Amino acid sequence: MNSQLQKKDSTKVPEPTLRRLPWYLSNVKLLRKRGERFVSSTQISKEINIDASQIAKDLSYVNISGRTRVGYEIDTLIAVLEDFLGFTNIHKAFLFGVGSLGGALLRDSGLNHFGLEIVAAFDVNPDLVGTALNGIPIYHSDDFEEKMQAYDVNIGVLTVPIEIAQKITDTMVAGGIKAVWNFTPFRIRVPEDIVVQNTSLYAHLAVMFNRLNFNEIR
Amino acid sequence: MNSQLQKKDSTKVPEPTLRRLPWYLSNVKLLRKRGERFVSSTQISKEINIDASQIAKDLSYVNISGRTRVGYEIDTLIAVLEDFLGFTNIHKAFLFGVGSLGGALLRDSGLNHFGLEIVAAFDVNPDLVGTALNGIPIYHSDDFEEKMQAYDVNIGVLTVPIEIAQKITDTMVAGGIKAVWNFTPFRIRVPEDIVVQNTSLYAHLAVMFNRLNFNEIR
Repeated sequence: MNSQLQKKDSTKVPEPTLRRLPWYLSNVKLLRKRGERFVSSTQISKEINIDASQIAKDLSYVNISGRTRVGYEIDTLIAVLEDFLGFTNIHKAFLFGVGSLGGALLRDSGLNHFGLEIVAAFDVNPDLVGTALNGIPIYHSDDFEEKMQAYDVNIGVLTVPIEIAQKITDTMVAGGIKAVWNFTPFRIRVPEDIVVQNTSLYAHLAVMFNRLNFNEIR
Repeated sequence: MNSQLQKKDSTKVPEPTLRRLPWYLSNVKLLRKRGERFVSSTQISKEINIDASQIAKDLSYVNISGRTRVGYEIDTLIAVLEDFLGFTNIHKAFLFGVGSLGGALLRDSGLNHFGLEIVAAFDVNPDLVGTALNGIPIYHSDDFEEKMQAYDVNIGVLTVPIEIAQKITDTMVAGGIKAVWNFTPFRIRVPEDIVVQNTSLYAHLAVMFNRLNFNEIR
């Protein structure tokens, strides 16, 4: 990677942009399946109902330029977006807490297609420790630091009960984890240089139930 | 439920508030486990690093009042929050697409504790149709309208491939589904009175990878 590209990649892209880019990617993939070769931001705009100027602005963070009249070449746009979003590199991760949701995530091989490979999991349950799920070994939580030496991992997936969410986060960070994908409904505290991505399915459920209720009694 | 309560529930609560309330809930649950009986917004604020005035404002949407000096009674606050967020009612749902992620969600019994019960799933794969996963029957997609009569369901969980995300959404809505929990990275279109909650794990991964990369080369 040359320094210019590296510089472009290191721009702090706004989070809303990063969340919209996968929409464009999936839409453009669909257009490719339909046999299209070029796409304009106006076309994407019509398909997914987002302002074309917003799409053009979002795509300006990505290292691609469209051609007047024909727009972006679809194959290139897909490759550049997948690369930009980090889906083409494999990022290795540890998962902490093989409960119901943790076990479900271990079984979801789909994450691999988007660049995340869970290479090992940790729990304290004697029925689980020493076994494997979907080919992923489950170790005792006490072995985490030792396994950090053995695996090249910098992401931790947090699916533990809320009572120990902060304690396990502290252990992860002390062991060298640089990003925590937090699936618990607990708001964890981390040092400033550690990335936290909160994905609380329960918060999403709360929003959905509220809106549903609002529509019903309106 | 009296009309005043009903009116309070029907206020359109801002989405950021709805996303923060589960944080307060999990934090307060933790305080209860530690033996606490009362909590103030200032205490919650210190624990989870959100402005106390913001917390008080968010809690003003919920039907609870604190007492001067001692704050909110924890047992009541938990009960009221769980009820307000819809976690105490069971909302029945159908799941569409028993692939890797869909299968994982069927296995995640944790959703039940937060008010979502997936009662049946749909797919076209002959190896899956007629079987059950975690006790949940899998029917052929063609049987959806018939099953809508048999089950009292108004939520659809969407975990199909992006190529058919819109088509399946249209079928769901035509059949009477009122809310779509969309796990695909595809931006679906629905009529105005249909609730959509987007939970794209891939968009969250993209944000996490970008921030991680940003920190590494900074």
